[in-house]
Amino acid sequence: MQFELLTTDPASQARAGKLTTDHGVIETPIFMPVGTVASVKGVHQRELREDINPDIILGNTYHLYLRPKMDIMQKAGGLHKFMNWDRPILTDSGGYQVYSLSNRRKIKEEGVRFKSHVDGSMHLFTPENVMEIQRQIGADIMMAFDECTPYPCDYRYAKRSMHMTHRWLDRCINHFNKIPALYGHEQALFPIVQGSTYKDLRAQSAEYIANAGAFGNAIGGLSVGEPAEEMYGMTEVVTAILPKDKPRYLMGVGTPINILENIALGVDMFDCVMPTRNARNGMLFTAYGSINIKNLKWEDDFSPIDEMGLTWVDTEYSKAYLRHLFKCHELLGMQIATIHNLGFYMWLVREARKHIIAGDFVTWKEMMVKQMDNRL
Amino acid sequence: MQFELLTTDPASQARAGKLTTDHGVIETPIFMPVGTVASVKGVHQRELREDINPDIILGNTYHLYLRPKMDIMQKAGGLHKFMNWDRPILTDSGGYQVYSLSNRRKIKEEGVRFKSHVDGSMHLFTPENVMEIQRQIGADIMMAFDECTPYPCDYRYAKRSMHMTHRWLDRCINHFNKIPALYGHEQALFPIVQGSTYKDLRAQSAEYIANAGAFGNAIGGLSVGEPAEEMYGMTEVVTAILPKDKPRYLMGVGTPINILENIALGVDMFDCVMPTRNARNGMLFTAYGSINIKNLKWEDDFSPIDEMGLTWVDTEYSKAYLRHLFKCHELLGMQIATIHNLGFYMWLVREARKHIIAGDFVTWKEMMVKQMDNRL
Repeated sequence: MQFELLTTDPASQARAGKLTTDHGVIETPIFMPVGTVASVKGVHQRELREDINPDIILGNTYHLYLRPKMDIMQKAGGLHKFMNWDRPILTDSGGYQVYSLSNRRKIKEEGVRFKSHVDGSMHLFTPENVMEIQRQIGADIMMAFDECTPYPCDYRYAKRSMHMTHRWLDRCINHFNKIPALYGHEQALFPIVQGSTYKDLRAQSAEYIANAGAFGNAIGGLSVGEPAEEMYGMTEVVTAILPKDKPRYLMGVGTPINILENIALGVDMFDCVMPTRNARNGMLFTAYGSINIKNLKWEDDFSPIDEMGLTWVDTEYSKAYLRHLFKCHELLGMQIATIHNLGFYMWLVREARKHIIAGDFVTWKEMMVKQMDNRL
Repeated sequence: MQFELLTTDPASQARAGKLTTDHGVIETPIFMPVGTVASVKGVHQRELREDINPDIILGNTYHLYLRPKMDIMQKAGGLHKFMNWDRPILTDSGGYQVYSLSNRRKIKEEGVRFKSHVDGSMHLFTPENVMEIQRQIGADIMMAFDECTPYPCDYRYAKRSMHMTHRWLDRCINHFNKIPALYGHEQALFPIVQGSTYKDLRAQSAEYIANAGAFGNAIGGLSVGEPAEEMYGMTEVVTAILPKDKPRYLMGVGTPINILENIALGVDMFDCVMPTRNARNGMLFTAYGSINIKNLKWEDDFSPIDEMGLTWVDTEYSKAYLRHLFKCHELLGMQIATIHNLGFYMWLVREARKHIIAGDFVTWKEMMVKQMDNRL
């Protein structure tokens, strides 16, 4: 794997880069659609490849570990083959879902014991077995096992948790280096900066993570309910410390505006369920603001879903038709909105990249942030 | 509109024909995917056009009348424009859904008063307003308003109902001729043979319907729970009487085997929710029998969904992957199964047509019927 930093914006920390993996090149900044349980919900792999066209997608270790389980995953030859997706994949470490989805979990130094939200069975995630699971999944980028603290989080807990995450990281790296990749392609391990919303902890964690010398670095524990300004403050502290010559991934972020602001702070990679989840609830993102397609005002609006036509669905269907599908709970409504939203997110990060390279990123970003902060 | 009978099978009543409408040519025998409320559930219009490729689809008057309602339909310029589908469409008369979906309905000579299953509001369908509604929808083929009797049905009720359906037909034709098409393309009206499972009533109804001199004729009131042999018996009586030079449509039928048997009895057009509805429950139709993809036996079967590769999904995804999607209730599972099943149904009727033209339809049909009567 190789990361090439192509441009840094003179007026911000924004960067354009190129990350080369055995499954292809990722042009950064990039947004990674979330393919939770081996499917980007409501989207065919063909549509993902040809219409949405992301360089990389994300899978969730927690979900894949529970279903289809690792014996099937290994027999399939890993996630790429199982779901028939030949471009890069990143998997999270399962930590976040254990905290957010499991009815019951107990965090100890050893790892996290948790109850499956699917069938109530008990399981244990440790830094070691999470490395093994991610080897079995075979993602190009694996994530270290961490604790994602909630918001708000008291200082003492945040500090204790951060240190445990650091100790877990050492165990992850140690075990990762011991066990080989299974499917003949290279896998990189990204460690995760924690420290809640405390600048000193974030700085301390960023130093620790930077010193691990990993191929790329991630920022976790944000976008968990804190105000956007606090998120940006933490990102700023961390990106000032993380090495410039390595990709930086801000986990679980966010709205289109969050993404542009964090690109300006030097983040290269993003993922979020927002474009897909909100799509399934009838919320569309556009360059001019968001649309609740279920609103009565669209009932007889026969104009295209999005005049910009960023994906084929935007001009194939009208707003009135899409509203009708949502009012009737038709599957096709969710399918259309998902393609639209993912297409928009991909357009947004690609435009950001173009403007970084052209040198006018900040001007464009300010215009876009204003323009998108709007309900149509 | 024009119907050309190209071939009649020497060893059966099977026919190959060509029905030309203002929205294009329909090669018969044909299967019409059901697009209930302006969407073939789970399928993009692009996929419908390019992958499934039916010559004609069906819309449900009852559903469209309730949602999006006729004011929106007219503002959209009719169903073709509303859903962006430029090939032929057939709409049913709303009768069947009134009887099967409405919580409460009262059938009188005037028409049927019913309660919407959507919001409980009261409505009246008459032969006259159903013609108006179908003019507003703008289907290429409209259906007469009828009463679809349940199974079993006592003789006296079946007879009384049949005569009412005949009187309603006269009112339909009369009103249809009075009100113009709204969108510049020709619309044809098909009358419907009723008579439950009584041969004498079916014969009497077929005579009445044949005498109406319509452009095409339909057989209703079958596939409502009667044994297949009884269905075939009724079809046989009716197709012997209906004019040979006009297309014959058997409403709501059926399984792949039902379709082949009824083609052999001289039916040209079919529709059924089975390929789409069963797909959403994980049941796949193939040339070698049906598959319940949720079964454990497919858990680690990484072979293609269908080796025959009738649509792209068949070879893009494995059985194990599709099973996984169903076990996780992922939308994509329903999407894949729907494309597969519709692709298979289209293949089946197209193959039937080829064999009718080649003159070996019966041999092929017998082989297929045996082969498909199987659970994989």
